[in-house]
Amino acid sequence: MTEHIDTLQRTLGHVFTDRALLTQALTHSSFGQPNNERFEFLGDSILNCAISMTLFRYFPDLQEGDLSRIRASLVCQSALVRVASNLSLGPCLRLGEGELNSGGPRRPSILADATEALIAAVCLDAGFSAASELIERLFKPLLDNIDPAAPDKDPKTTLQEWLQGHKIALPSYSMVRIQGEAHAQEFEVACEIPKLSLRTLGRGASRRAAEQNAAELALAKLKNQ
Amino acid sequence: MTEHIDTLQRTLGHVFTDRALLTQALTHSSFGQPNNERFEFLGDSILNCAISMTLFRYFPDLQEGDLSRIRASLVCQSALVRVASNLSLGPCLRLGEGELNSGGPRRPSILADATEALIAAVCLDAGFSAASELIERLFKPLLDNIDPAAPDKDPKTTLQEWLQGHKIALPSYSMVRIQGEAHAQEFEVACEIPKLSLRTLGRGASRRAAEQNAAELALAKLKNQ
Repeated sequence: MTEHIDTLQRTLGHVFTDRALLTQALTHSSFGQPNNERFEFLGDSILNCAISMTLFRYFPDLQEGDLSRIRASLVCQSALVRVASNLSLGPCLRLGEGELNSGGPRRPSILADATEALIAAVCLDAGFSAASELIERLFKPLLDNIDPAAPDKDPKTTLQEWLQGHKIALPSYSMVRIQGEAHAQEFEVACEIPKLSLRTLGRGASRRAAEQNAAELALAKLKNQ
Repeated sequence: MTEHIDTLQRTLGHVFTDRALLTQALTHSSFGQPNNERFEFLGDSILNCAISMTLFRYFPDLQEGDLSRIRASLVCQSALVRVASNLSLGPCLRLGEGELNSGGPRRPSILADATEALIAAVCLDAGFSAASELIERLFKPLLDNIDPAAPDKDPKTTLQEWLQGHKIALPSYSMVRIQGEAHAQEFEVACEIPKLSLRTLGRGASRRAAEQNAAELALAKLKNQ
């Protein structure tokens, strides 16, 4: 374990002054108290902020909606798991016996949470700037891969991001009707955004397709408003 | 206008080195380019981070769920409008003529967005620490009013926060049945959380009451798992 942790600190480029912070960041709740749950709360917001600052600087011409979309692709479980993997974080974690024996050190949620907790620990040990520099270093491979002109997402995702950007509660989708024989059904789904008094009906050969269609119609209405 | 802005800088306790940053933060999109939309993206994440750091320090014994709940009460439109009001921000804003004549300077969304943009401008002008200190000063009256033992929220809010804390997509509510005469209807609503394969049926005298009941039953199931 000590060997893994020494390697981790070298990979991080940060040697902890207060080693207890590092230990707590690596301790999953299944191990006991104190664990990394509070650190994760803090680390998530530090990560979100540092990535926002970096994107703001990297992409001076992008609008807020595009910045939000790119940020969402970096501050998410899959990105955090990649960072955790680059850090070989799994073997450093302290887990309860049950978690340890059921693949806990490879579980995406555990790895992502520990990565966020680690960011918080660096911030508590050395301040926001140190944490922010670390984040830029850890996320460099992902930042270098960003294509700001990437094709648009599917309508449901685009609608969700637009609403989040405008701080409006997410739409609810509900099945209105299923018609036709079992082998050729048509689904009709309503997309409702109460705050905007907006309701659209989408159709498709599956529930999912009908939802996407309803979201597309909602986006079209929003654009016309 | 100049007089309002001088007063604003005194109230902020920050005199801008780069005055153009302040001007941009106060410029609504209806006025033209450059406006405060990108600043708002940045300011929102700085606010979220600084408030998280403050709460982490203020409440060393609170768990992550409680910290998230309190943060949500501070990083929200109503709190930002209170801050904007304490700063007398309305008269400093640059708005298009239409917005100006239709009550724009008093519109909550415009005031909240400009407050976030202002936070970003201070960060860009003087760094994260300056912005973070400003946030703690601006939010002091709200921070002093926090009661960490405040009664629980309604079941839908509690369920939503729990799911957000666990990074699980929000539940969908859909009407299953409406029974009875118009003056005495009973609504039945399903609450579904696909990721947890969880579905509950709530009942009530209104759609809203039935949703709350379904959320309550979902919370009870989660506690038993």
